[in-house]
Amino acid sequence: MNRSMIRYVMGGVLKVEGILLLLPFIISLIHNERSGLWFLPVAFGSTVLGILFTVRKPDSQVFYLKEGCVSTAMSWILISLVGCLPFWLSGEIPSFTDALFETVSGFTTTGASILTAVEPLSKCMLFWRSFTHWVGGMGVLVFLLAIIPMSGGSNINLMRAESPGPSVGKLVPKIKSTARILYIIYFVLTLIEFVLLLIFGMSPFEAVCTAMGTAGTGGFGVLNDSFASYSPVLQWIVTVFMILFGVNFNAYYLILFHQAGKAFKMEEVRAYIGIIIVAIAIIMCDTIHIYGDAFEALTHSSFQVASIITTTGFASTDFDTWSQTSRTVLVILMFIGACAGSTGGGIKVSRFILAAKTFFKEISGYIHSKSIKKLTMDGKPVEHEVLRSVNVYFLTFLFIFTASVLMVSLEGHDLTTNFTAVAATINNIGPGLNMVGPTCNFAFFNPFSKYILMFDMLAGRLELFPLLILLTPRVWYELLHPTSRHEKNS
Amino acid sequence: MNRSMIRYVMGGVLKVEGILLLLPFIISLIHNERSGLWFLPVAFGSTVLGILFTVRKPDSQVFYLKEGCVSTAMSWILISLVGCLPFWLSGEIPSFTDALFETVSGFTTTGASILTAVEPLSKCMLFWRSFTHWVGGMGVLVFLLAIIPMSGGSNINLMRAESPGPSVGKLVPKIKSTARILYIIYFVLTLIEFVLLLIFGMSPFEAVCTAMGTAGTGGFGVLNDSFASYSPVLQWIVTVFMILFGVNFNAYYLILFHQAGKAFKMEEVRAYIGIIIVAIAIIMCDTIHIYGDAFEALTHSSFQVASIITTTGFASTDFDTWSQTSRTVLVILMFIGACAGSTGGGIKVSRFILAAKTFFKEISGYIHSKSIKKLTMDGKPVEHEVLRSVNVYFLTFLFIFTASVLMVSLEGHDLTTNFTAVAATINNIGPGLNMVGPTCNFAFFNPFSKYILMFDMLAGRLELFPLLILLTPRVWYELLHPTSRHEKNS
Repeated sequence: MNRSMIRYVMGGVLKVEGILLLLPFIISLIHNERSGLWFLPVAFGSTVLGILFTVRKPDSQVFYLKEGCVSTAMSWILISLVGCLPFWLSGEIPSFTDALFETVSGFTTTGASILTAVEPLSKCMLFWRSFTHWVGGMGVLVFLLAIIPMSGGSNINLMRAESPGPSVGKLVPKIKSTARILYIIYFVLTLIEFVLLLIFGMSPFEAVCTAMGTAGTGGFGVLNDSFASYSPVLQWIVTVFMILFGVNFNAYYLILFHQAGKAFKMEEVRAYIGIIIVAIAIIMCDTIHIYGDAFEALTHSSFQVASIITTTGFASTDFDTWSQTSRTVLVILMFIGACAGSTGGGIKVSRFILAAKTFFKEISGYIHSKSIKKLTMDGKPVEHEVLRSVNVYFLTFLFIFTASVLMVSLEGHDLTTNFTAVAATINNIGPGLNMVGPTCNFAFFNPFSKYILMFDMLAGRLELFPLLILLTPRVWYELLHPTSRHEKNS
Repeated sequence: MNRSMIRYVMGGVLKVEGILLLLPFIISLIHNERSGLWFLPVAFGSTVLGILFTVRKPDSQVFYLKEGCVSTAMSWILISLVGCLPFWLSGEIPSFTDALFETVSGFTTTGASILTAVEPLSKCMLFWRSFTHWVGGMGVLVFLLAIIPMSGGSNINLMRAESPGPSVGKLVPKIKSTARILYIIYFVLTLIEFVLLLIFGMSPFEAVCTAMGTAGTGGFGVLNDSFASYSPVLQWIVTVFMILFGVNFNAYYLILFHQAGKAFKMEEVRAYIGIIIVAIAIIMCDTIHIYGDAFEALTHSSFQVASIITTTGFASTDFDTWSQTSRTVLVILMFIGACAGSTGGGIKVSRFILAAKTFFKEISGYIHSKSIKKLTMDGKPVEHEVLRSVNVYFLTFLFIFTASVLMVSLEGHDLTTNFTAVAATINNIGPGLNMVGPTCNFAFFNPFSKYILMFDMLAGRLELFPLLILLTPRVWYELLHPTSRHEKNS
């Protein structure tokens, strides 16, 4: 195990977080809030620790998938531990577990909150909450790759561990350029949303928080009722941008480089749009009697479908009062999730496409016993290895999901609450149904359940394996024993 | 498509059912029940139809997996349609849909009932209900294979389509002998249970129905409260036999032929026993405060764990009143199910073993990036094809499960009811939670939901694919067009 490289990456992450923590401090100066002072010592401590970690260059820059997974998992735990300190030290979230839950929920772009009301929080804290979404959406390690120089082609293993989707494509041959292009697209889209929200009547503070929450497909709002009190125009702007941030960013890259035709032919994007349209149609027909008005039903169903499939988790209405059919559709959307290579969570549309193709191939195998044709996606044959990893992903997801529901059930709440609480966290959505519905929060869970749900949020965001790798005794043995056989080899 | 062979198999099944229908008629003579008369015309009609179907020998006995699937699916639908007629014609179950539901539930060994009370039914009808469990448990086609002469090695495709588990092993080189050995073990075990139940105080009628319901892992009882009013001794006898019928029958074959050591080393049997012990321990600790007495808690938790994991569905107590932890454990057991090659349903323990091994292999692949070792089961390497089919099985199960929950949700009941109703039918258990709990029944569903649940019961019993194959347009085209290209080839 290349321990010095893991230390170096974590040091880089700490330095980045130290700088990021200055932004909420600036917000506190603007709004003249005393609690914002707490960001200073945390930023200072994070930066100093980061400098200490990186003062000595790593002995070797060779980096295998194992190291990629370990440093990704450890970095995400570390940024959450540091990021929760301002909430806790300022006393705005008095319990450490709750502060950590809120921060993990922020960085993983889940948006599940332990706050019964968000409006009492100071503006700088609300900004930091939403900002964690924006940072977590594209990934803090991708950011690191975009700015710091790292030699060696093995950096792809860092990106592979953090980026969502069954296969990571480099947009351009160099990782660093790929990471930069992704962040530029991300930044520009966020900026456009911010400007549109401003134009249509949001205050600058609300607009920046909302834009960051949408971009990271997070879901923390700055109002107690999430999105219910905003005008339909603002709701529609956010609906459109939620859908846009759930699209595979490769599509934007293709559009940027004048290959829009190719972008619109991407099977995943087509399936994603198709699922959204069908879901909106079902829910609209099902809720039209509640709102009495076709346009209002369309507004709410579009907003909610976009919010759930992209795993954002904003709510324009209390969807827990909808009929069982609409709620079941929403629960299904929770698991489908957004496109691979977007900022959204869930299992991802492309995995479902591959699963569906595997299924139809199997049926066809029964009927035409001799036909063996290779599966294709976007016209290219799919590697056997990718198909296998998709299958393993579904199995692993099932195991973690079931174990989590069982452990959360120890508290004794009903099955719908436990099931949707786990679904809403592992898929990085935020609100679920019943006791964790859009008008409720996660405060009532005991600390044990909260740590289980935090694990689920991190597992969901990092696509399960990095966190599981970190839990194996073998990895800990290698981390704690400097000169193991494996290190010598590498 | 070899249509004449499909016709011939279905004719055989009808003749068998005609004979089987005479048994409840004999019961009605013993108990002097007029409603039993209805069995006569149905038995006669079934036999005559069967003779007509089989009067002309099939042109060719060549039989591919496709034909195996199609004739299995069609046979099971046919025996259910014929088998429900006595319930309906006698008026004891006035609605045709309900009568069909009860019969499908019987043959698939589900045990989900639409009856609010079973005691008002005449004895011959109760006998027929339980008898369908016994016939469905080992499989009507396996029975056919055991008694009628069929040449050609391709009969394995019939057995493969009906037998549970990821891979069908022939115990002995000849299919016919395998089928006979299976039925002999099955019959002897049922007989032993019957005798034991008699000795410990059950009436002969109750003993025979209970023994058949246990053997098929069905779950229809003859008392309204299922098993709650029987003595603990009787409950323990049934507990032990439920567990025995959930064991892979290969184990009994090995024991019969003096290879007991091998039988006890079967990984699936060990895992099955292990899961049972862990589940009993959890539920016993969790329910001891309800019963106040360790032995009573042990009795009920053992009975319920055995009943659910083997997918029998008898109830010794209203487990829907247990805590959420125990209920979640039961829901998980519903999906695990019994061993492959047993009469039980569910996804099967061996599929979970293979899934778990795939998962750990993946983790190990991340850590030791170069190691490629083949998975083994019982010391033998597992074929890639088997692993692939296990993965596809999980995916297909997920699709059918999700689609069913969505369609049942159209009725508007709560998620727990819909979720466990589908889980209890597709896994062939019987009772679920909430509105379909052990003291409730399935009568309140509308006909649409009932047909969805019937589909799930059949899909679960036939391991998904035979029924899905029957739904493809290609198969219907070949069934309706005598001289298709495919038939010429075969």
